[in-house]
Amino acid sequence: MASESGKLWGGRFVGAVDPVMEKFNSSIAYDRALWEVDVQGSKAYSRGLQKAGLLTKEEMDQILHALDKVAEEWAQGTFKVNPSDEDIHTANERRLKELIGETAGKLHTGRSRNDQVVTDLRLWMRQDCSRLSALLWELIRTMVDRAEAEHDVLFPGYTHLQRAQPIRWSHWILSHAVALTRDSERLLEVQKRINVLPLGSGAIAGNPLGVDRELLQAELNFGAITLNSMDATSERDFVAEFLFWASLCMTHLSRMAEDLILYGTKEFSFVQLSDAYSTGSSLMPQKKNPDSLELIRSKAGRVFGREDKEAVFEVSDTMSAVLQVATGVISTLQIHRENMARALSPDMLATDLAYYLVRKGMPFRQAHEASGRAVFLAETKGVALNQLSLKELQTISPLFSGDVSRVWDYGHSVEQYTTLGGTARSSVDWQIGQVRALLRAQRA
Amino acid sequence: MASESGKLWGGRFVGAVDPVMEKFNSSIAYDRALWEVDVQGSKAYSRGLQKAGLLTKEEMDQILHALDKVAEEWAQGTFKVNPSDEDIHTANERRLKELIGETAGKLHTGRSRNDQVVTDLRLWMRQDCSRLSALLWELIRTMVDRAEAEHDVLFPGYTHLQRAQPIRWSHWILSHAVALTRDSERLLEVQKRINVLPLGSGAIAGNPLGVDRELLQAELNFGAITLNSMDATSERDFVAEFLFWASLCMTHLSRMAEDLILYGTKEFSFVQLSDAYSTGSSLMPQKKNPDSLELIRSKAGRVFGREDKEAVFEVSDTMSAVLQVATGVISTLQIHRENMARALSPDMLATDLAYYLVRKGMPFRQAHEASGRAVFLAETKGVALNQLSLKELQTISPLFSGDVSRVWDYGHSVEQYTTLGGTARSSVDWQIGQVRALLRAQRA
Amino acid sequence: MASESGKLWGGRFVGAVDPVMEKFNSSIAYDRALWEVDVQGSKAYSRGLQKAGLLTKEEMDQILHALDKVAEEWAQGTFKVNPSDEDIHTANERRLKELIGETAGKLHTGRSRNDQVVTDLRLWMRQDCSRLSALLWELIRTMVDRAEAEHDVLFPGYTHLQRAQPIRWSHWILSHAVALTRDSERLLEVQKRINVLPLGSGAIAGNPLGVDRELLQAELNFGAITLNSMDATSERDFVAEFLFWASLCMTHLSRMAEDLILYGTKEFSFVQLSDAYSTGSSLMPQKKNPDSLELIRSKAGRVFGREDKEAVFEVSDTMSAVLQVATGVISTLQIHRENMARALSPDMLATDLAYYLVRKGMPFRQAHEASGRAVFLAETKGVALNQLSLKELQTISPLFSGDVSRVWDYGHSVEQYTTLGGTARSSVDWQIGQVRALLRAQRA
Amino acid sequence: MASESGKLWGGRFVGAVDPVMEKFNSSIAYDRALWEVDVQGSKAYSRGLQKAGLLTKEEMDQILHALDKVAEEWAQGTFKVNPSDEDIHTANERRLKELIGETAGKLHTGRSRNDQVVTDLRLWMRQDCSRLSALLWELIRTMVDRAEAEHDVLFPGYTHLQRAQPIRWSHWILSHAVALTRDSERLLEVQKRINVLPLGSGAIAGNPLGVDRELLQAELNFGAITLNSMDATSERDFVAEFLFWASLCMTHLSRMAEDLILYGTKEFSFVQLSDAYSTGSSLMPQKKNPDSLELIRSKAGRVFGREDKEAVFEVSDTMSAVLQVATGVISTLQIHRENMARALSPDMLATDLAYYLVRKGMPFRQAHEASGRAVFLAETKGVALNQLSLKELQTISPLFSGDVSRVWDYGHSVEQYTTLGGTARSSVDWQIGQVRALLRAQRA
Repeated sequence: MASESGKLWGGRFVGAVDPVMEKFNSSIAYDRALWEVDVQGSKAYSRGLQKAGLLTKEEMDQILHALDKVAEEWAQGTFKVNPSDEDIHTANERRLKELIGETAGKLHTGRSRNDQVVTDLRLWMRQDCSRLSALLWELIRTMVDRAEAEHDVLFPGYTHLQRAQPIRWSHWILSHAVALTRDSERLLEVQKRINVLPLGSGAIAGNPLGVDRELLQAELNFGAITLNSMDATSERDFVAEFLFWASLCMTHLSRMAEDLILYGTKEFSFVQLSDAYSTGSSLMPQKKNPDSLELIRSKAGRVFGREDKEAVFEVSDTMSAVLQVATGVISTLQIHRENMARALSPDMLATDLAYYLVRKGMPFRQAHEASGRAVFLAETKGVALNQLSLKELQTISPLFSGDVSRVWDYGHSVEQYTTLGGTARSSVDWQIGQVRALLRAQRA
Repeated sequence: MASESGKLWGGRFVGAVDPVMEKFNSSIAYDRALWEVDVQGSKAYSRGLQKAGLLTKEEMDQILHALDKVAEEWAQGTFKVNPSDEDIHTANERRLKELIGETAGKLHTGRSRNDQVVTDLRLWMRQDCSRLSALLWELIRTMVDRAEAEHDVLFPGYTHLQRAQPIRWSHWILSHAVALTRDSERLLEVQKRINVLPLGSGAIAGNPLGVDRELLQAELNFGAITLNSMDATSERDFVAEFLFWASLCMTHLSRMAEDLILYGTKEFSFVQLSDAYSTGSSLMPQKKNPDSLELIRSKAGRVFGREDKEAVFEVSDTMSAVLQVATGVISTLQIHRENMARALSPDMLATDLAYYLVRKGMPFRQAHEASGRAVFLAETKGVALNQLSLKELQTISPLFSGDVSRVWDYGHSVEQYTTLGGTARSSVDWQIGQVRALLRAQRA
Repeated sequence: MASESGKLWGGRFVGAVDPVMEKFNSSIAYDRALWEVDVQGSKAYSRGLQKAGLLTKEEMDQILHALDKVAEEWAQGTFKVNPSDEDIHTANERRLKELIGETAGKLHTGRSRNDQVVTDLRLWMRQDCSRLSALLWELIRTMVDRAEAEHDVLFPGYTHLQRAQPIRWSHWILSHAVALTRDSERLLEVQKRINVLPLGSGAIAGNPLGVDRELLQAELNFGAITLNSMDATSERDFVAEFLFWASLCMTHLSRMAEDLILYGTKEFSFVQLSDAYSTGSSLMPQKKNPDSLELIRSKAGRVFGREDKEAVFEVSDTMSAVLQVATGVISTLQIHRENMARALSPDMLATDLAYYLVRKGMPFRQAHEASGRAVFLAETKGVALNQLSLKELQTISPLFSGDVSRVWDYGHSVEQYTTLGGTARSSVDWQIGQVRALLRAQRA
Repeated sequence: MASESGKLWGGRFVGAVDPVMEKFNSSIAYDRALWEVDVQGSKAYSRGLQKAGLLTKEEMDQILHALDKVAEEWAQGTFKVNPSDEDIHTANERRLKELIGETAGKLHTGRSRNDQVVTDLRLWMRQDCSRLSALLWELIRTMVDRAEAEHDVLFPGYTHLQRAQPIRWSHWILSHAVALTRDSERLLEVQKRINVLPLGSGAIAGNPLGVDRELLQAELNFGAITLNSMDATSERDFVAEFLFWASLCMTHLSRMAEDLILYGTKEFSFVQLSDAYSTGSSLMPQKKNPDSLELIRSKAGRVFGREDKEAVFEVSDTMSAVLQVATGVISTLQIHRENMARALSPDMLATDLAYYLVRKGMPFRQAHEASGRAVFLAETKGVALNQLSLKELQTISPLFSGDVSRVWDYGHSVEQYTTLGGTARSSVDWQIGQVRALLRAQRA
């Protein structure tokens, strides 16, 4: 054993354990969130020990009763954490010993710290996934309701931030809602892999005392049992999966926020954020900043890149807040229909103009070029695309005739997109139905 | 339109299009891998156009025939890429036009570049996931076969790189194989979300020409259809999911490689890598470096952090090579049973010594402490833990009696871990059976 | 030595060296860029060997001459890479041996592959930093020239994408140019740490043959010599630093691109990108997309997250293209002064209105509130802020008097910001002078 | 203004401000660390306002006095944070107003929140860099002292975890110390770029009230003044640079920790960690885990990937703890000289054997091959390399003669590496001198 007399070549003084090291090693500051599942896991394990003959019925009852007392103290905020409690697990065991003495020492028989930590974490994350699923479904539901209520509003669809084609406002909402349904599907898959019992794996070799893992599984209501004890105590795939899920979900919320920030600028003026989700400037009296949306965007960058237990708690809090704020934003957002309508311009129908020619038999590549020439002609003459005369259009192609005037109707334009997934009214209604059906299926 | 006469305030000369910009914007260097699926997608789309009345039967046949010719040229290596071919899609369409003239221009009717790019990418990745699944299953199968063949070999299990408990060598192999079964499960889930048809989404608003997306789905054998045209053309969740899958799988392979590098050092001498997976040093004649394992580790770091099409191709190549090299390494690895046996030391049975006392009725926490005192006593006396006399042990606890000698048998030690997932022979055999059943289920 | 007869438990067939592994391990595909510096390093090393008495003068001359021949073959494109050439270093040495026979084998005396690889990499990156510095300076110079030429143009400054205060267009240009001067400063620091000689470190223990490292330093014109041979051959801090530099520089270019994309939308219409930096849509005839700017943004995400030699080459290419494209974009960009002017609105002078009251003695916090009340009053009445009558303003504060009309002048507003770094004409000119002085200092 | 009556399509109830949003937006939980620099910055700014005529001498004195009171409350722990205090800056200003009434409202004249936040952050980080520099220097000093005291100890140098060449233990220590000197150099450069005054930049356009920024610079002792007000308030390059610095420094500490973990395994047994930096296992009584070293490794992964103010505080705490723990570990580490000596084996002198032939005139590539044949011959015969007879060696090359026996001396081997940076005693002493000189120069 190394003599502790100490430091041979300088450096700070060190006692039995360097206090910097002790603090460094402690996790109680963030893992106290696990108090409830830690008690839950210990109760199940003591039942396993009793069945294996390592606890008498009386000892088990004593432990179960005392664990309930520990839980009660946490619930009532009267549990006192000692400075020497390294983590939530030692804190609870320390308290158990204070309550019932040496019998408390039997609870850890054949159970390693890793065994316990990973079981608790899985129990907690299982709950948390349910909670986050509910918040996510609420957001999607709000979006779909809104898409349904406002399906008659048209506005410009953008690609590369350039006006592209007229679409329904609901089509935009649904493009984001559909992305979120993939997130809720993935969350269920992650939860499925979280919901696997590791308890009974010991440190590395397994449990040598005949503890019945199927009983533990039943007690804790896990969907399956881990296959290999070494893998069970060390793997954290489910943590990485959860963080990846959060990262992807935040990417979607961030993109929606980015669009809304833009649509809320003076220059676009399509939407107006509720005051409940805005803040002012300390210097400029006229400012109303979309802070809720900017926070969603900035949080996205912080969700990724860590792979530890601490990250899970922080990311879970972030996701919970973000999902609620997003729901609030969507449900209170005002839209300016008249500005949306005004932003539709005839050049956004250039694709329809090409399709007009296609319908008259011209190959699309030529029709695309012909329509492009019309756009150029209008720009050169300084008029809107729909103000070119039929004669002028006919200089570009003799296929143009009087019925071209029907192209210049935005409502007619969007109504062409009836294919599944398109922006026509019927197709948008189909999307609403599909997303609602998905929600029902996922909740089930 | 901006006058192109040019640069007002210096800077490099620019022509009609800055050549740096042109090269910057080109993707043909890596997306040529898509040639086959691009032809496949175009063939399906021309069938859709014909059904929608936008191509005659004759035009369709002409296009289908010419597309087969294009594919043949790629397959035979005679396809000539022009410098002006921006990507694989323009290259194929340019060639189609050379072959059949203006009719080629009809193929793109109602189909946007995004539509086409994302359809091709999904088709390619679907194939690729099948190929990678097969390689992954082959690796797992090799590992399980080896675990079965060598299930009688014991060696030290480590935690924190410190010798912890005796385990079976097969238990170690299975701990890695089990992790890989999660990867193959996840890959199937990713593939399921890849296998969704986007074609028919147009640029943003959908397809206005009545192209039947269910026909396209059937032609291209997709499992489902995307719900929203805006989402369909812009979302790349499946790319992020694939890269995350690769990252997690590489993490597992990297950890296995890390263990094997260590077990192959002079100091451990448990395993010996085949020469087929080693390299020498240009300076030091005696060196034999485990380069295959180090490459696996270093590639792991490179798999993550990008989210684009180019990354998919590169990561897919890496995964393919890594899975094959790992299979080769595992199937040719030599193990040194005698060194493994020698590395087992009595202090690794300290946990068993504690369990001995537990079985005699002592609470585990006290038994842990008593066993710890025995370890300290042995260290102080400079003898191995199993060389303490019964008398000496009894100074620690009167519960020790003659039968303590049975603790000092490594074979007996591992045979205690019969709980599901443990390292006992029966439990290891159960794991082998479980993993094989999983493989069968996943392949199905 | 392990018997190679082979695979014991299945897996792919493996020969002497698994061909997958061989390809996996090869780097010649990307490190051929090092051919010139590899020859340069070898020439210096052969001079070191001669001085140490390990080569005769004749042998050295023979080697130097043959190395020049190798370089010539590379320069003229006649060097033939063999499939078995693992990397550029073995390729060059193999060729040297073909040219002069066994004497070639003396060149590697006391030099390890790591020694050689890291020396070559430092030589190459030193050159590359000079090249990138020049491109970066050219970009900054173009921006400063433009800032000077257009310093009379006012437009809205934004925070949170909301109109904040009137500023000079030049002030916006300079805000980005100043950020880039930090990048050029950092690049010089990185280059300083690249410019350190590692050669003479051997594999790990150093060089035992008396090679004079100060001679090598002088031959290769390095600024310093590495201190420790183990550290010298293994550290790649300078690679990480270079990649971090690129990442930060790309962040700045990406932000500028993001602003310009926005300013180029129909809704803002402040600037128009030259056709040389735009592309069209395959589907929508009217579209002109700011692809150059979007590529700059998307490349930013790809620069980070890798730490290897291959990344250096790729990132360097990206930076080189991006800097040139950015220079081209800035020098050809058209601005719409009239739209800029039109976008200035009286509410952006609300801060000035508060300052008006401050100058009359009101504490700023009260003045901020009073100005906010004026904004609210104008909104309620549906008029612009400057259309409130003096009487109306006086209901908010009696400090308002006739001279308040002078607040409503955008030119006057910006001219107040004369403090160093502000947007007044004098301050903008000061910034231009400062940035030019910095450029001169950095080039020196 | 949007009607707040509320949510139109469901979602959670929202009041004036959504409380989730309010909490989401608050930073007081972590930015309270800035209390001292916030007071410092405000004191300087009030001096600036007085000089500009915006505060009377009396008002300034009143503010300065009250700010001292605020600081005193923080220092004594009596400052009460209100739930509505969004951040440290609003908390301090709110308190100031409680102390002196409306005059407090004058302090913010012409100063934006961003102005204030970034000034405070730079002040805090400047201090913090000094603190971290001191801790880093202390670690390097401890390492160099130890390298000097133990420069007579030889042990194996490893590459690829394979025994490579005999080196001095001090050479290993110095390889890590030298890496850390680059970190301390970089930290000084980061600090230089932190040490630039942004105050006086306002929101975006600058300061219109004639506040003298050179006075502010002098008051707050900054090294320079930011050039552009827009850039000054928005750029956080210095945060990214600090986090990158921390990431690189942690990489170095992590690599050292990785080596020490390995050297401390039973299999290597070169070093023994002090109990002050070890912990036990809750299950296995014999275990002593190198937790301090493992924490250093795991913290490394957490330092990177975030770019915000919150990250700075957390990363700074981590770095501070890690540097102190590393200093403690190094200063109390015990080394086992006899195990180190025993680990040196004759095959590690195979390179020296090749050099022996080189000195007799054989080209190195042939000598490398001849030495490799000797290694193979010894392996085949099952003897150590130095037990081959002269006759046997001469079957490989006639250049071997009796003096070959001098090769088999580890001390003689390392003493050959006298080139700068090598592992010979003289070269190690030179390194010690160089690192000490660097430390002195950096402290100055």
